[in-house]
Amino acid sequence: MKLALGIDIGGTSTKLALIDPQGNILARNAFSTADRTDEHDFFRHLFATADALLGSEGASQLAGIAAGAPSANEQKGTIENAANLPFSPVVELVKTVQGRYGVPTSLVKDSNASILGEWHYGAAKGMKNFLLLTLGTGLGAGIVANGQLLGGEFGHGGEAGHICVVPNGRACGCGRFGCTETYVSATGLKRTVFELMANTMTHSTLRSESYDAMTARHIFEAAQAGDALALAAFGKTGEILGRAIADMAAWFEPEAVVLSGGLAMAGDLLFVPTIDSFEGHSLAFHKGHKIKVLPSALGENDAALLGAGALVWRGN
Amino acid sequence: MKLALGIDIGGTSTKLALIDPQGNILARNAFSTADRTDEHDFFRHLFATADALLGSEGASQLAGIAAGAPSANEQKGTIENAANLPFSPVVELVKTVQGRYGVPTSLVKDSNASILGEWHYGAAKGMKNFLLLTLGTGLGAGIVANGQLLGGEFGHGGEAGHICVVPNGRACGCGRFGCTETYVSATGLKRTVFELMANTMTHSTLRSESYDAMTARHIFEAAQAGDALALAAFGKTGEILGRAIADMAAWFEPEAVVLSGGLAMAGDLLFVPTIDSFEGHSLAFHKGHKIKVLPSALGENDAALLGAGALVWRGN
Repeated sequence: MKLALGIDIGGTSTKLALIDPQGNILARNAFSTADRTDEHDFFRHLFATADALLGSEGASQLAGIAAGAPSANEQKGTIENAANLPFSPVVELVKTVQGRYGVPTSLVKDSNASILGEWHYGAAKGMKNFLLLTLGTGLGAGIVANGQLLGGEFGHGGEAGHICVVPNGRACGCGRFGCTETYVSATGLKRTVFELMANTMTHSTLRSESYDAMTARHIFEAAQAGDALALAAFGKTGEILGRAIADMAAWFEPEAVVLSGGLAMAGDLLFVPTIDSFEGHSLAFHKGHKIKVLPSALGENDAALLGAGALVWRGN
Repeated sequence: MKLALGIDIGGTSTKLALIDPQGNILARNAFSTADRTDEHDFFRHLFATADALLGSEGASQLAGIAAGAPSANEQKGTIENAANLPFSPVVELVKTVQGRYGVPTSLVKDSNASILGEWHYGAAKGMKNFLLLTLGTGLGAGIVANGQLLGGEFGHGGEAGHICVVPNGRACGCGRFGCTETYVSATGLKRTVFELMANTMTHSTLRSESYDAMTARHIFEAAQAGDALALAAFGKTGEILGRAIADMAAWFEPEAVVLSGGLAMAGDLLFVPTIDSFEGHSLAFHKGHKIKVLPSALGENDAALLGAGALVWRGN
């Protein structure tokens, strides 16, 4: 049997998996990225973890390797100026890994790895037009249009988190104001809770927590327990996300928008107000739920690993 | 020599041109669409005009025919439910024209005809990623990404005029509020003049005109004569257009955004505030004018005709 080695490099941990041509994960392992001192230390752990996964038999079955990483330069196969990795400015990932294992090796941006996973093995299987929105600390997106990943002229397209949804709205880390991710993300949800605490008299268990201490999980748990303010925060998040999706539909007219990431795990609390708002703000020819809003079928971790697998098996 | 016959069907007039493989228009003519009683009358005039253009020699040189039209169903080669054409609900354009001339015939949406013209023979020649915005009564767009025209899942993508730029803003004909075209179009410019007349004390010659009588050309002429209110209206239009282009850059990261249509003819009056605002609202990696804002190199009429020519000569 032929095997692909998929690698998902993140700031906290690096995950590895052996994947068969049908997209089944046969074995997996991980190590801490944050504890590495530099890229040499990283590669030592990467090779040791991969060797252990492959065993003596797996090495001969290895058809190819693909990795997803932040700050990936896909053309050069390098990771460049990665803010959250303990790396030198330019790390030759493809060259180093290919030199060690002698099989075709490729590198994509982490967001692209996830979209490839959802596309070939997940919620967007077989679709020619869809968006994947990852609702975590920020808001990331991958776009497939006409059956192709959209990258933009310089590789920085698909910045869904930094579209202006509220002119002169909340300050964003990018320097602009009112960006989507200042409302629609784990952080955005918390900011909305604090706005509602300021503007309303609504009682809430969340009023006993500091900004620094509060997490999206606390807000989720409060909402599940019926906390009116937490419910209102999810409602407003969905309202803005639905409006943003209506605009995405006007631009891209996808078959579906897939929501993944921690905040998407809130399920109906997020999906119900999002779909209501999307339907309300849709253009006439998109009304009647013509464009689906779907949860990820893979979960964030496996999407990136399976996307790496897709790169090996399908070349995209 | 081989010839293509390009046809640009509009609500007011239908234009025809003979185009050589290099994109030169060798001869052209037009007839009134508005004066036609039905599609049979339309086809009689279309064939008579085409026959006269081709002459006895041209007919034997004809390599293909392509037409751009509103409400075109590109797959079926039909024009369906066209609001501004005196047609039955479904008109078999490709079948009828091909039946008459016996050469390959194709039909695209009018907006796609223009973008094909700018792409192959105009301001976006050779680009893999660009947007064409047509600023007329409304705001239309064509998008090329990864070297492909984006159409969307059901053929209704690229609705740049109906992206929300001002939440709960001006009422739009589409039923939504705050759509780009309610600010950035000939009509949007006029609405801004009326807003400024309401909100400011600025003197203006435009205060003597009714809403119904005022045109974008009047506002343009007032601005050229130094009218402060007209200048402010162009400034605000550019401010909103620049912000909208910053969002387009975040989504598509094009090499250029090409502006065409009547309002784009205002030149610096529109381009200067637009480019200033775009630069100010750009994401960090797009600052420094990395993405160009260009005027159409063809003008609206020739863009659609040449786009039809490109369809014959290049198949897209």
